[in-house]
Amino acid sequence: MPDDRDRPTQSAPRDPDDAQHALERVESSLRRSDRVGVERELERELDRLHPADVAYLIEALPTADRLTIWQHIKSADSVIDSGAVLLELSDGVRESLVASMTPDEIVSAVEALDADELADLAPDLPPRVLDRLSGELTVEERERLRSAMSFPDDAVGARMDFEMVTIRDDVTLEVVLRYLRRFDALPDQCDQVFVVDRHDRLLGSLPLDRLLINEPDTAVVDVMRTDLLTLRPEDDAGEAAQAFERYDLVSAPVVDELGRLVGRLSVNEVVDVIREASEEAQLSAAGLREEEDIFAPVGESIRNRAPWLLLNLVTASIASFVASRFEHTVGRIVILAFLMSIIAGIGGNSGNQTMTLIIRALALGRIGGTNVRQLVVKELTVSVLIGLGGGVIAGGFAYLMSGRLAIWPVMAAAMLANMLVGAALGMIVPLTRARFGKDPAIGSSVLLTFATDTLGFLIFLGLATMVLL
Amino acid sequence: MPDDRDRPTQSAPRDPDDAQHALERVESSLRRSDRVGVERELERELDRLHPADVAYLIEALPTADRLTIWQHIKSADSVIDSGAVLLELSDGVRESLVASMTPDEIVSAVEALDADELADLAPDLPPRVLDRLSGELTVEERERLRSAMSFPDDAVGARMDFEMVTIRDDVTLEVVLRYLRRFDALPDQCDQVFVVDRHDRLLGSLPLDRLLINEPDTAVVDVMRTDLLTLRPEDDAGEAAQAFERYDLVSAPVVDELGRLVGRLSVNEVVDVIREASEEAQLSAAGLREEEDIFAPVGESIRNRAPWLLLNLVTASIASFVASRFEHTVGRIVILAFLMSIIAGIGGNSGNQTMTLIIRALALGRIGGTNVRQLVVKELTVSVLIGLGGGVIAGGFAYLMSGRLAIWPVMAAAMLANMLVGAALGMIVPLTRARFGKDPAIGSSVLLTFATDTLGFLIFLGLATMVLL
Repeated sequence: MPDDRDRPTQSAPRDPDDAQHALERVESSLRRSDRVGVERELERELDRLHPADVAYLIEALPTADRLTIWQHIKSADSVIDSGAVLLELSDGVRESLVASMTPDEIVSAVEALDADELADLAPDLPPRVLDRLSGELTVEERERLRSAMSFPDDAVGARMDFEMVTIRDDVTLEVVLRYLRRFDALPDQCDQVFVVDRHDRLLGSLPLDRLLINEPDTAVVDVMRTDLLTLRPEDDAGEAAQAFERYDLVSAPVVDELGRLVGRLSVNEVVDVIREASEEAQLSAAGLREEEDIFAPVGESIRNRAPWLLLNLVTASIASFVASRFEHTVGRIVILAFLMSIIAGIGGNSGNQTMTLIIRALALGRIGGTNVRQLVVKELTVSVLIGLGGGVIAGGFAYLMSGRLAIWPVMAAAMLANMLVGAALGMIVPLTRARFGKDPAIGSSVLLTFATDTLGFLIFLGLATMVLL
Repeated sequence: MPDDRDRPTQSAPRDPDDAQHALERVESSLRRSDRVGVERELERELDRLHPADVAYLIEALPTADRLTIWQHIKSADSVIDSGAVLLELSDGVRESLVASMTPDEIVSAVEALDADELADLAPDLPPRVLDRLSGELTVEERERLRSAMSFPDDAVGARMDFEMVTIRDDVTLEVVLRYLRRFDALPDQCDQVFVVDRHDRLLGSLPLDRLLINEPDTAVVDVMRTDLLTLRPEDDAGEAAQAFERYDLVSAPVVDELGRLVGRLSVNEVVDVIREASEEAQLSAAGLREEEDIFAPVGESIRNRAPWLLLNLVTASIASFVASRFEHTVGRIVILAFLMSIIAGIGGNSGNQTMTLIIRALALGRIGGTNVRQLVVKELTVSVLIGLGGGVIAGGFAYLMSGRLAIWPVMAAAMLANMLVGAALGMIVPLTRARFGKDPAIGSSVLLTFATDTLGFLIFLGLATMVLL
């Protein structure tokens, strides 16, 4: 069925810095005092931009300027596809712009979107608007919207689109070429057309390059690929992304349990999946729940950051309470107070190295049943060796600071022991979480720091009490 | 010029978990006692795999097993393309396998590779072998190899390939279709053919979908795209990747200063660029210089991890030395010893949140000249509010532990102050590094922790000395 979408395509820039320059010009336009002049300059700058660049511009500007620009974009005479811009925006910014729109404005902005795109926006749309939009869809489109919304965000089903060109296997390439000429446009990132039987079951794929290099009288069945990677809607999008990376794919078919073609995953979604996973890892490592719009209200930022800081405050307080059981020891040898944080810190840092490597190896599927033992032996060996070296140095420092020779072995032994604690937990925590099907990265660092702080204090002050008092 | 590569293409698996299952079977094959049986089973399992899957298998196995498998792969009767496998391996593993090969074996493994692929392997090949390979290339290929090796790894020039199909603008689509039929294969991820003049200057591009949907008698000049993103070899690969993400590109032309087409960047390289950047960020956040093969020798792991741990040991020792100037105060009120690490920790954690968000905003190009002031105001406001809340809680805890009411405001004020230190440095360090064209992420966290530890101890113990003694 020929695709009938004929959105005006805004142009991609000729050079990757283009959007950056447009931002500078728009910023200075917005500083103009006359409203009409602002409007005219915005039109000149914005209307030639790709929706993704418009979205970038909006995100780089403070809230008031965003609304000025958005006012221009949703006006009737703007050629910018406001639905496409909404798709490209991050969640927080999108929500705030949608909040500034009337139901009619929202409907006219997004009604041209495909079902899979609408599904991406759905969580940010008012339910009443969503019902109205859904009512305007064809039965097939409504079914697709329902399907796309029914999968979690990390499933292939939520990431796939429905823009597939399908052909039968009993025709010649000549017929396929003539058929394709009836389209106004092929789907984005279309590198293959899918070969299906009359029940829509996937038989294979005809890559465009095979279509182009073979003679027109060749039959599809003679040149189609049958060894292609097929996904299921419930597959994990991250694993699908690894397959795309490994086999350098541009698109892959998605089939249901009966082998019927139900969708297509394309590399642009895969790039988003990879980027999002990487962002999430970076943010959650710093205890942030989500990306923060730099101009977000202060209240939102506090909600984003405070819970983790509070959790850390609690664990640090517990560690400090545990350490305070040695008040008598520290009262006698005050210098221990200043040395104990060195022991706690090195255990956390070293454990964090181990944990990072384990989490990465798990993500790459490199840790299986048989190699865990070797891994454990290696990590402990590395920790013992670095711990011995570091312990001798730190012990020397402790001796210089305190003038007590007996503190040297205490410091060295405590450092070695706490590095082993760090290495052990750096392995146990992510491996255990992974074993129970949980994301090995989440929460692991808080637990690790808690353990290396508390046990670091305990080991060091405990040893000091035994040896030095 | 028709492409003459006709490597046997190994098949992609039908399902993303396929490689995982193959690994399990290969692991059990390797445990067999009879050498011939091992060899036969390896052949059955490995020969049907994609080179990327073979590489995955090798990386998941211990060193001895790797060599057994590699022995099989480089044997004359294996159908596996050992050059393609080498390309997919991570640097450390590749080096160790190359080290096990004779010069002749290396040459026969990699001589079928393209210039850009050879350039990727070059750093791991013995210089004499590289000279020999280079001598076997055509003049054009040798020039490409030289060019690809002359760019740093993060430049488009090091990432581009040379597999371009070019046409003239004065022909019809019919001529293009006939021309393409002369090829044995089109380049991987070929979504467009480039339109050049007789001096190889890029005039535009004919996307394959435009070739397919338009009538054969249409002239190329009437349907070619002229508004396409063009890259330069010296462009930053990360910025090019952002452009691919924004505009959902599959490939982009690379031109020299005269506008001549010199190469092509494709989305599979872009995916690698994004993945590598994300890995680097994760590893360097934990103070690791590079990815560590889990079966790497212990010495290599120590070299990878010890420098950063040593640096942290030094900064922690300095912070502890600074704090020890307050030995008299702590000697009088021992409980301070256990509270000071809470102050240091919260400042580091909070500063790390700010720093992570700033580094991300910088990477996305969202921080420009005019919005820095707003950003600073917002970050400080958030820190003051969380600092006040957290300070009151932590002060209450300090009061409960010490029984001294006067410690409450000391604890609260020190926490607030150290959170402001963290927020300020979390902004200043990455912004300053970025201003001087340096990577804002590298080294920032060590500097931040050093400052929040040292100043946290100073502020808390200084205030305590003034108020409580």
